[in-house]
Amino acid sequence: MKFNFQNKEVYYEVYGQGKPVIILNGIMMSTKSWVPFIEDFSCHNQLILVDFLDQGQSCKIADLFPYDHDIQVRVLKALCDELKLKKVNLVGISYGVEVALEFACRYQEYVDKLVLFNTCAYTTPWLDDIGKAWNMAAETGKGEHYYYTAIPIIYSPTFYEGRLDWMRNREKILFPLFSDKNFTDAMIRLTKSSSNYDVRPLLKDLKAPTLIIGAEQDYLTPLANQEQLLKSIKNGFYVKIPDVGHASMYEKPILFSTLALGFINTVTEEYKV
Amino acid sequence: MKFNFQNKEVYYEVYGQGKPVIILNGIMMSTKSWVPFIEDFSCHNQLILVDFLDQGQSCKIADLFPYDHDIQVRVLKALCDELKLKKVNLVGISYGVEVALEFACRYQEYVDKLVLFNTCAYTTPWLDDIGKAWNMAAETGKGEHYYYTAIPIIYSPTFYEGRLDWMRNREKILFPLFSDKNFTDAMIRLTKSSSNYDVRPLLKDLKAPTLIIGAEQDYLTPLANQEQLLKSIKNGFYVKIPDVGHASMYEKPILFSTLALGFINTVTEEYKV
Amino acid sequence: MKFNFQNKEVYYEVYGQGKPVIILNGIMMSTKSWVPFIEDFSCHNQLILVDFLDQGQSCKIADLFPYDHDIQVRVLKALCDELKLKKVNLVGISYGVEVALEFACRYQEYVDKLVLFNTCAYTTPWLDDIGKAWNMAAETGKGEHYYYTAIPIIYSPTFYEGRLDWMRNREKILFPLFSDKNFTDAMIRLTKSSSNYDVRPLLKDLKAPTLIIGAEQDYLTPLANQEQLLKSIKNGFYVKIPDVGHASMYEKPILFSTLALGFINTVTEEYKV
Amino acid sequence: MKFNFQNKEVYYEVYGQGKPVIILNGIMMSTKSWVPFIEDFSCHNQLILVDFLDQGQSCKIADLFPYDHDIQVRVLKALCDELKLKKVNLVGISYGVEVALEFACRYQEYVDKLVLFNTCAYTTPWLDDIGKAWNMAAETGKGEHYYYTAIPIIYSPTFYEGRLDWMRNREKILFPLFSDKNFTDAMIRLTKSSSNYDVRPLLKDLKAPTLIIGAEQDYLTPLANQEQLLKSIKNGFYVKIPDVGHASMYEKPILFSTLALGFINTVTEEYKV
Repeated sequence: MKFNFQNKEVYYEVYGQGKPVIILNGIMMSTKSWVPFIEDFSCHNQLILVDFLDQGQSCKIADLFPYDHDIQVRVLKALCDELKLKKVNLVGISYGVEVALEFACRYQEYVDKLVLFNTCAYTTPWLDDIGKAWNMAAETGKGEHYYYTAIPIIYSPTFYEGRLDWMRNREKILFPLFSDKNFTDAMIRLTKSSSNYDVRPLLKDLKAPTLIIGAEQDYLTPLANQEQLLKSIKNGFYVKIPDVGHASMYEKPILFSTLALGFINTVTEEYKV
Repeated sequence: MKFNFQNKEVYYEVYGQGKPVIILNGIMMSTKSWVPFIEDFSCHNQLILVDFLDQGQSCKIADLFPYDHDIQVRVLKALCDELKLKKVNLVGISYGVEVALEFACRYQEYVDKLVLFNTCAYTTPWLDDIGKAWNMAAETGKGEHYYYTAIPIIYSPTFYEGRLDWMRNREKILFPLFSDKNFTDAMIRLTKSSSNYDVRPLLKDLKAPTLIIGAEQDYLTPLANQEQLLKSIKNGFYVKIPDVGHASMYEKPILFSTLALGFINTVTEEYKV
Repeated sequence: MKFNFQNKEVYYEVYGQGKPVIILNGIMMSTKSWVPFIEDFSCHNQLILVDFLDQGQSCKIADLFPYDHDIQVRVLKALCDELKLKKVNLVGISYGVEVALEFACRYQEYVDKLVLFNTCAYTTPWLDDIGKAWNMAAETGKGEHYYYTAIPIIYSPTFYEGRLDWMRNREKILFPLFSDKNFTDAMIRLTKSSSNYDVRPLLKDLKAPTLIIGAEQDYLTPLANQEQLLKSIKNGFYVKIPDVGHASMYEKPILFSTLALGFINTVTEEYKV
Repeated sequence: MKFNFQNKEVYYEVYGQGKPVIILNGIMMSTKSWVPFIEDFSCHNQLILVDFLDQGQSCKIADLFPYDHDIQVRVLKALCDELKLKKVNLVGISYGVEVALEFACRYQEYVDKLVLFNTCAYTTPWLDDIGKAWNMAAETGKGEHYYYTAIPIIYSPTFYEGRLDWMRNREKILFPLFSDKNFTDAMIRLTKSSSNYDVRPLLKDLKAPTLIIGAEQDYLTPLANQEQLLKSIKNGFYVKIPDVGHASMYEKPILFSTLALGFINTVTEEYKV
């Protein structure tokens, strides 16, 4: 389904009934990435998937460039309004968490719980420079070049080697897509939109119970990033997944569902032990 | 409620409806330890709590001493039969996991999923010798002595210091109990019943999806123990909780529920990503 | 050799020539514990070993009880004066580091470099309560009881199980010693002398280059303690030894020498890379 | 100084006297990278620095391409012969370790001790694919592109952000060099020469005492690589440096010297504790 945000179409999908859960994509992902998760997330919950602007089946926004997360935060707010949701659970990974955190800090009253996979509180100069390499590779127009620059580092070496056939199959799917200027230009814009991301000053006011998940082989948003988040947040909980990289939802999908749904669907807010 | 196992009363409680979940106690615990968890575990599930023989409101079994886990495994089987349960999820912590693993290896067809907190595949000489110190302290009859020998090492230093009032309150509750020969004799027997525990040869045949949870400050069953379990099990998943000790259910109850219920209530067995 | 400190004999040994290195014992250790290290430490350096009061061949000080680290700090100062040492390197483990840090903060000008194994900046309530269990066990007069309470937790499970013959041999050596009231009373006093240890307020002024070594299976002064030290010290360096416990010098003697001598004998204070 | 290897000039430097230590460079390094280390390494030891073929002031070998490590192993052997060294200590980082390990397995009798920083036992498909991205970036001829692809990931985020001025200064130095086809072609050849690296089958026979150093933020040869090495080697020792990346010698030079010289200069081979 689609709705209009400032004359741009935003694509979303809704499944099931129950406490609403919106899953927010990482940069190179789209609503399609979550197909294997729909059954679990819509079993006891209302699941909402959405493509950010410049992602998947939502509108490309070259005309609005340069933009930053602010526009995606407003897309998310418009989506809540469109669906008349007054209280949502947000589950995000990477880029999706950045938007989720900015949304949660700005619209506290809309947020029930937060589940944050593979993320950080701000774009460090280190991460920003890695993003420069990605964009330079994208600009060459060679899918293979963009692929090898961005993809291996997203996965843990363990998964990459253990599932080498799957990875080699991904090359075949992604080489053409990564050569498509329409796609790569959008990726470049999305990557640049994170450049000034810094939610640190806002975190101390965040009240929503928040589950932070770090992956021990995440080499883009390493554990130190999640530890910083945990220290900055009042009501935070923290779990680590060993032997997993930045793309934790691909590497350990069952743990992704376990953690997100387990945390969202517990009813007791604070146990008196 | 109670049922008879070889003329010994076994105490148990049942709450709610849905996929059945049996929670299995650590040595010094009882059904009462789980009061704060009842709401969450009975919300979408049938929760069964049980006191092992020599625990809580179940029968003391000095007359059967020496015994090992085998008797508790049979208690668990008898409980399933009593409740006419053909397929259960087992959630255990420490001693409870040891029994759960032996049960699961012996009665595979009865087990749906396993959730294992703070545990190991066998009693190492190191852990066995620590148990000797506990029992020697218990035998002095001085609650204070038993308390300081066994309790601090069960908690993470982080929790112990951060919740010092709660710990000091625990001293008041536990000093008298730990001076009660009836109680300490049962604890001594339970501790000794783990001495010959070794489920390693059986693990390779275990088929149940199994979530293994390690706590980074667990100084009785340290992370290396859970890593060994993970390597030995076909269908295992692994998560670590930072800054938490052996008594993870006391230190991070919300994570305990999140992980156990999240894992048990996901329906998809294997995601095709 | 011996010298007098307030009419109490202090035992020490001196080997070799070069930059002076004083090694400071953990509680249950003595100059004898370092015999295997003498060759390496005296090869390019002057090595000084010393028994604190109430340790090894130094005087017992029941008459001065209760005392705290202050007296050992003054013993160390007296030793420097006795040997006319104006600048020393201090290598300590556990209790020895506590004294080393207090000495270094009080007599900055006497300290060249510090090497700190398995230690903390203050005695937490958690560690203090563990100490209570040790002392209660010591007071029973049963060597076996004291042994099982204190010893297993000092070693990593890896070492304990891997070197089980060595550990069983240690039982034979230590059971009689740990039953000797003269010895255990001294141990009780030493343990109590750490109870009020807290060097945190002084650390920010410490100038000596300091190498902090944490052992990943140290369950008495866990890694978080060393991380706190590192953050509090201006000129600190940090290394971790995996699979090793609190008694790192017994478990990995070659790494002990490598780290201590490597750090002390580098001449460049700060590299301009 | 230079010597001839198959009509190619190999550049090397020699400093000091004592047990000989050869330091072996990572791919983008050269003898010049070690200037700050010369004082410490030549203080008690004979230090030998060397540029591999295609590195620094040694000969470029486009005419021999494709080649693999074998040629560098023979260069190293020729260097030993040139200097009439019958027993050397090898200290390597990254690429340098790969050559050191192959040399040590082939010429056991020439090797005293090994010190291995930031390395692996074989080139995984994951690492190989990252190398492809580096080479594609190098081939664009744009120094900036090659820099951002290869450099950030070599350093820990902690160092990169904490020493941002130093990093920005490195950009200025390296952008022109990384645009120089002569240099980048050599780098491409060196990177490709690692592609078939696999020393695993040979490790079990290695007898030299070996110190393996892992850096916790090494995202090219992560800790799992060093753990695999440790398990494969008979006489291995293992230490971790927290908060440090793949370029550990730049990030913590004092620890580099401490570990290398400390390990090499201990005389006792095995302590009898």
